[in-house]
Amino acid sequence: MVKTYKIKVTTQGNCHIVNITDDVTSALADAKLGDSFDGVMHLFHVGSTASLTTIEYEPGLVNNDMAAMFEKIAPTDGSYTHEATWDDDNGHSHIRAALMGPSLSVPVLDGQIALGTWQQVVLIDFDTRPRSRTIVCQILS
Amino acid sequence: MVKTYKIKVTTQGNCHIVNITDDVTSALADAKLGDSFDGVMHLFHVGSTASLTTIEYEPGLVNNDMAAMFEKIAPTDGSYTHEATWDDDNGHSHIRAALMGPSLSVPVLDGQIALGTWQQVVLIDFDTRPRSRTIVCQILS
Amino acid sequence: MVKTYKIKVTTQGNCHIVNITDDVTSALADAKLGDSFDGVMHLFHVGSTASLTTIEYEPGLVNNDMAAMFEKIAPTDGSYTHEATWDDDNGHSHIRAALMGPSLSVPVLDGQIALGTWQQVVLIDFDTRPRSRTIVCQILS
Repeated sequence: MVKTYKIKVTTQGNCHIVNITDDVTSALADAKLGDSFDGVMHLFHVGSTASLTTIEYEPGLVNNDMAAMFEKIAPTDGSYTHEATWDDDNGHSHIRAALMGPSLSVPVLDGQIALGTWQQVVLIDFDTRPRSRTIVCQILS
Repeated sequence: MVKTYKIKVTTQGNCHIVNITDDVTSALADAKLGDSFDGVMHLFHVGSTASLTTIEYEPGLVNNDMAAMFEKIAPTDGSYTHEATWDDDNGHSHIRAALMGPSLSVPVLDGQIALGTWQQVVLIDFDTRPRSRTIVCQILS
Repeated sequence: MVKTYKIKVTTQGNCHIVNITDDVTSALADAKLGDSFDGVMHLFHVGSTASLTTIEYEPGLVNNDMAAMFEKIAPTDGSYTHEATWDDDNGHSHIRAALMGPSLSVPVLDGQIALGTWQQVVLIDFDTRPRSRTIVCQILS
């Protein structure tokens, strides 16, 4: 059994971190699988400049600390062959997203997503401009 | 079909890397799926300051080299808005865990986990103190 | 229902990034699941010095920019206890692979892998010599 949903979010780019926990919870509710359902929810970001992960969704981490780490790993104003080749400005976006990856799997236990208390599901958009993003959400049992 | 197990481990924090290969192997044995079973084992760490991955579990990598890399990416004594906001000391723990991610999926082939010879399943705890951790282990076919 | 394939690739090591999108597409075609099939494809690299992710497979990112980022995170000529212990030269390979992880899950919708236009599935080999690699590919519904 697989139930598939598409979650759409708009972002500002530039390390904008969007909390999609309510979206995945809504998808699970819509699937009407009941209070005793055990399964797995698979999430996948379609595209090459954003990633999925979990994080404590509080302003310090989300608006400052994650971006600061990525500036160290792959600086916004670094030199990228991708940018020289394509006259583009998002070389750092691509390699950050490739490092973090596009997929995330979360257990569903007794009909609920089994996150920790301080753990939210997020999309992090590394691109350099506002984007509309699609996350494929699939529930399997 | 889904079989769900909860694996509990205690850690020392501070990049303590715990080999959970025996735990997941025990869960698989307990599921009694037989020698011809093919499926997938999904693992998920519940919480926002530890991650799952695979690594060759030998002392050099596990006690020194991984921690040294993370000191470069997100230093223990760095400046984090998370810490300033919450009077906390684990900003680096959160962003390291968000970078690595909480989920891992491993194939099960002919009733065995299909790891490489030098590849073990581990939890890496980035928090700054000893913790009790829960990993949800789900076997699907 | 699970269908399992093994994808074999040869690599040059040293951050060689191999596009395996055609391989996973061929596996899916071979499974003959039809145009209305929805499910998930799970991919896993067997071994501890290579990883899977998605990236826009263009020469700048693939031949230069990803390797440059990893030189920053875990330099090839850095000092690693792994190398001192085992008289080996691939400490950086192990920790890069542990950071990125060995597993990736991709949705299959209407019988097709749901990648973005500029998003390819790749193996990145961090080892220091040519290798033969095996990726387990499992399609579940």
